[in-house]
Amino acid sequence: RIALPVYASDALSSAAYAPDEILLTLALAGVTAVTLSPWVGLAVIVVLLTVVASYRQNVHAYPSGGGDYEIASANLGKPAGLTVASALLVDYVLTVAVSMSSASHYLVTAVPALNGQQAPIAAVGVAVLVLVNLRGIREAGAVFALPTYLFMASVLGMCAIGAFQAATGNLADAPSAGFDLVPESGLDSGLVGLAGAFLLLRAFSSGAAALTGVEAISNGVPNFRKPKSTNAASTLLLLGVFSATMLAGILALASATRVRVVQDPATQLTRDGVPVGPDYVQHPVISQLAETVFGDGSIAFFVVVAATGLILVFASNTAFNGFPVLASILAKDGFLPRQMRTRGDRLAFSNGIISLGVGALALIIIFDADVTRLIQLYIVGVFVSFTISQLGMIRHWTAKLGTERSRENRHRMQRSRVINAVGFGMTALVLLIVLVTKFTHGAWIALLAMGGLYLLMFTIRSHYDSVARELAVDDGVQGLALPSRVNAVILVSKVHKPALRALAYARASRPNSLNAIIVDIDTEDTRRVMEEWDRLQIPVPLTVLSSPYRETVSPVLAYLREARRTGPRELFVVYIPEYVVGRWWEQLVHNQTALRMKARLHFEPGIMIASVPWQLASSRDSNATPTPGSGL
Amino acid sequence: RIALPVYASDALSSAAYAPDEILLTLALAGVTAVTLSPWVGLAVIVVLLTVVASYRQNVHAYPSGGGDYEIASANLGKPAGLTVASALLVDYVLTVAVSMSSASHYLVTAVPALNGQQAPIAAVGVAVLVLVNLRGIREAGAVFALPTYLFMASVLGMCAIGAFQAATGNLADAPSAGFDLVPESGLDSGLVGLAGAFLLLRAFSSGAAALTGVEAISNGVPNFRKPKSTNAASTLLLLGVFSATMLAGILALASATRVRVVQDPATQLTRDGVPVGPDYVQHPVISQLAETVFGDGSIAFFVVVAATGLILVFASNTAFNGFPVLASILAKDGFLPRQMRTRGDRLAFSNGIISLGVGALALIIIFDADVTRLIQLYIVGVFVSFTISQLGMIRHWTAKLGTERSRENRHRMQRSRVINAVGFGMTALVLLIVLVTKFTHGAWIALLAMGGLYLLMFTIRSHYDSVARELAVDDGVQGLALPSRVNAVILVSKVHKPALRALAYARASRPNSLNAIIVDIDTEDTRRVMEEWDRLQIPVPLTVLSSPYRETVSPVLAYLREARRTGPRELFVVYIPEYVVGRWWEQLVHNQTALRMKARLHFEPGIMIASVPWQLASSRDSNATPTPGSGL
Ligand SMILES: [K+]
Ligand SMILES: [K+]
Ligand SMILES: [K+]
Ligand SMILES: [K+]
Ligand SMILES: [K+]
Ligand SMILES: [K+]
Repeated sequence: RIALPVYASDALSSAAYAPDEILLTLALAGVTAVTLSPWVGLAVIVVLLTVVASYRQNVHAYPSGGGDYEIASANLGKPAGLTVASALLVDYVLTVAVSMSSASHYLVTAVPALNGQQAPIAAVGVAVLVLVNLRGIREAGAVFALPTYLFMASVLGMCAIGAFQAATGNLADAPSAGFDLVPESGLDSGLVGLAGAFLLLRAFSSGAAALTGVEAISNGVPNFRKPKSTNAASTLLLLGVFSATMLAGILALASATRVRVVQDPATQLTRDGVPVGPDYVQHPVISQLAETVFGDGSIAFFVVVAATGLILVFASNTAFNGFPVLASILAKDGFLPRQMRTRGDRLAFSNGIISLGVGALALIIIFDADVTRLIQLYIVGVFVSFTISQLGMIRHWTAKLGTERSRENRHRMQRSRVINAVGFGMTALVLLIVLVTKFTHGAWIALLAMGGLYLLMFTIRSHYDSVARELAVDDGVQGLALPSRVNAVILVSKVHKPALRALAYARASRPNSLNAIIVDIDTEDTRRVMEEWDRLQIPVPLTVLSSPYRETVSPVLAYLREARRTGPRELFVVYIPEYVVGRWWEQLVHNQTALRMKARLHFEPGIMIASVPWQLASSRDSNATPTPGSGL
Repeated sequence: RIALPVYASDALSSAAYAPDEILLTLALAGVTAVTLSPWVGLAVIVVLLTVVASYRQNVHAYPSGGGDYEIASANLGKPAGLTVASALLVDYVLTVAVSMSSASHYLVTAVPALNGQQAPIAAVGVAVLVLVNLRGIREAGAVFALPTYLFMASVLGMCAIGAFQAATGNLADAPSAGFDLVPESGLDSGLVGLAGAFLLLRAFSSGAAALTGVEAISNGVPNFRKPKSTNAASTLLLLGVFSATMLAGILALASATRVRVVQDPATQLTRDGVPVGPDYVQHPVISQLAETVFGDGSIAFFVVVAATGLILVFASNTAFNGFPVLASILAKDGFLPRQMRTRGDRLAFSNGIISLGVGALALIIIFDADVTRLIQLYIVGVFVSFTISQLGMIRHWTAKLGTERSRENRHRMQRSRVINAVGFGMTALVLLIVLVTKFTHGAWIALLAMGGLYLLMFTIRSHYDSVARELAVDDGVQGLALPSRVNAVILVSKVHKPALRALAYARASRPNSLNAIIVDIDTEDTRRVMEEWDRLQIPVPLTVLSSPYRETVSPVLAYLREARRTGPRELFVVYIPEYVVGRWWEQLVHNQTALRMKARLHFEPGIMIASVPWQLASSRDSNATPTPGSGL
């Protein structure tokens, strides 16, 4: 069986915004330039099908999954792997940001009263996805299948009906067809000269947004049914064909109905020479087409818009599945904090979900849910991973060919290598075009984010490596050398049950020496403790440490350091009586001195910290949150 | 010497807003009603001088300081003390909120371009005061003396010059004198009937804002030079006289120049029947008087406005000195968390400063720096403490009279008791008027806050009491009973130096039994640890605990509970190998399993937790922040 629906939403949903990007970029050079949109779309489709063909080789070569990060790491080394990882992390965050922003614009199409609230809506949507995914959802195929098929059926159906209307001469003009476009200064004469060529390339690289999501399949191979590679490859092919068909259909219909979309309607759209002004609400291309073909407010219109919004939400959701898995793999390789390594426990997965949600929220807020501006960042990440991954595949086949003897296999591998090489050349070219035409439009932000992530992951790994080196058991038995003496030191602040228990435990471990100490913060309090000590005839000497600055930790440190000077090979065990309360607010009102003391003592060599807890009644409440308190 | 300048700013600064409150309340009944303002001011001055006379008895009776909280607690019991404490805490927060809000309005008078930004300015001012006080300021008398004397000199000077101008017929009308007042519906015919009487009482209770700050002296007695009581009493008298003179002078001059201030200029002020509209910026009374007497933009005008703004900032600052002291006293008595108890350490003081700042910031933001609305809350807190404190003093003298034999002393005490009784009667009456006339205008919020604080402090004290009862050493030696056996359990996750050190420490303490355990989270990792264990021939048995849910803490808990079932009187010492990194971000990337493990183990009876730290090189960096890491 082919798992199209589950993994397809990310890739298919790109049809919800990619056509818009082509049209609104061309619109900068006026109405005539927009008529070139089908040709730009064709170029995008060629790249799309090439990338799909290329990725079919990937999933055959790496049926175990792992995706672009594994391919790059295995064939091109760690730096390439880390680069792809950075690109993919950025990609996931932007998948959520772009998809939810676009979805909020489709929602506004159906409910115009919400206009202007796109960013808050997208933000709330992300928050809901985070909560839903934190709770955990059973991935039921049927739930994923419905919006995927609904989206494909409604968009392709709309294109077919539109084509029929056109053939019978019944296709209406889009509501926006009557607008004139104000070209950008320098592009008044259309797509001519260097500026025109540059804009054409920009439109093409904007259209490359149609490819986003293809990489999601290759990272999801392990989840396919067996035979995994075959299923994944077939899914990819189907996906490519459907994506291409939808893109072509939408662009053709948009051309036929003369849909006008621009980046800033207030200044770029005019009717009879008068700007439409700030009150005009521009709908996405699919919405405008549904309006034109089915009529505004018709049921079919709402079905198309709803299906598009829904597939965008599902596309975001796939990122919430993919991101924690990638983060876990990176954490396992030591590039991300260990807390992100999922070993089946919910906690680690949660860290990934929350990180992704926070990242996407930040982007939505910073970019005010502006799909066009977010897409500039999105495409860079996607094409970096495309390009490096294909380069890795070339190296992969070359290495394999070095050992493979079977003629038939060699033939197959050479063929795969050619496909990947074409894919590499194509994606590298597109990446170059994207970088050149989009650098100042936001691509630099994506590169900066990737660079930052790269540096972060590199630093974390270096840290782990250096810790592991330092902790390694180099010369076997040395670490086992026993201390020459064990000295017990009991910290006392009051004569209460925790302190007496600490004394008992210390005595039970029969140390070579046994001393109690009290820091003299409040003379009155100290005097009372000493009296109690005598009255109870506690058989342990009590030393008073003076504290000129009324501070608890430093006098204890000074005492221990002085004691250690006389016996550097001796062990000092510091007993800390603590009491444990049950509720969080109870913890708040207890002094945190024990916590600070323990934290500081961790930095002193030759010292072991022994916490002696006394459980108060409230700590035994079954519904209490466990919170350790402090008895100092 | 009399310490007037240092403690005077809080009380004197009330002249910056109290006259405005009288005038704008009367303005609700039209222009004729406003002419009654000097009489209302006179009533306020009578109360002010009575309260001052009353408080002079307080400082004589309690020269050691302690203030209203101590007086109420000592003479009327804990509930009365707690009520006063709640009122004083609210009072401090409102001193800051009101003074900084008022100061920001005076700033806008001098720099009109800042109009509309009063709340942000006040908020920034509070933030700056918090930072300055966190850093700590040496209280130099001269610094405090300057604004106090400047304020008194400039305001009284202004009144004198205004009086001279009036006498010579040169006193101009205030710029706002030309406005007509729109009376509130029901008060169109001026101060007649029940509504009129009620408004007069409201104006009087608004004017009671002039008394805020008098209580600050009685809480600051310990800081006076010797003889403390005499100096404090003289200061109080001076303060009362100056406050009364300024209030009288300002109201008289405002009457003579026909200053118009209202609560909402846009709707309540008209010129020739036309509302002034939202663009009119209303200046405080002192500003308007300075403008009238000296001329707008004159140097003298700026001096008066600057002196007023400055004294308001200094008044706020006194609250930052007083609040942490009161919080510390309350913490010592167990009513606030121990962290607020200052024993000379900066940290506890900081908690008080930050709490006060956060409270004042919240009020400024919620009430948009609206002085009039904030004052409704302020007066309640001040008069609650006035009233209860005077009642306490009556009881104090009655108790003293019960034992005093000397005729002369008895005479003095009876005289003091009469004064305090008059003070009590007067403040109780004002409190009643305030509650009746202001309840719906915001007084209920102050009462709610006081109730909340009362409940909070009561709950905290109950908690401390119950913990102390539970921990008390009731039957002496029982707590010293030694455990019958000591069993060492070492938690292992890797074979590295921290684990070997934990083993060595455990063996050095010669327990009755010694076991190492590892939780099998990752089969591969566990196998490696076991191989290393064998290779190094570590002479301690290693037990593998299975973990079906890949969770670390529960299997260890289950193991320990099972072990404790066989020996309930035995002690189990759990050794936790930890490594210590130096930088905070390093800590972030290490798994927090050890922390979670220790936190959870605190809740298990019969268990002692032994942390065995291994200091990594980075932890020995001198400039590193000490942060304990985890080796699990
Ligand atoms: K696609
Ligand atoms: K994607
Ligand atoms: K996508
Ligand atoms: K005053
Ligand atoms: K005050
Ligand atoms: K005041």
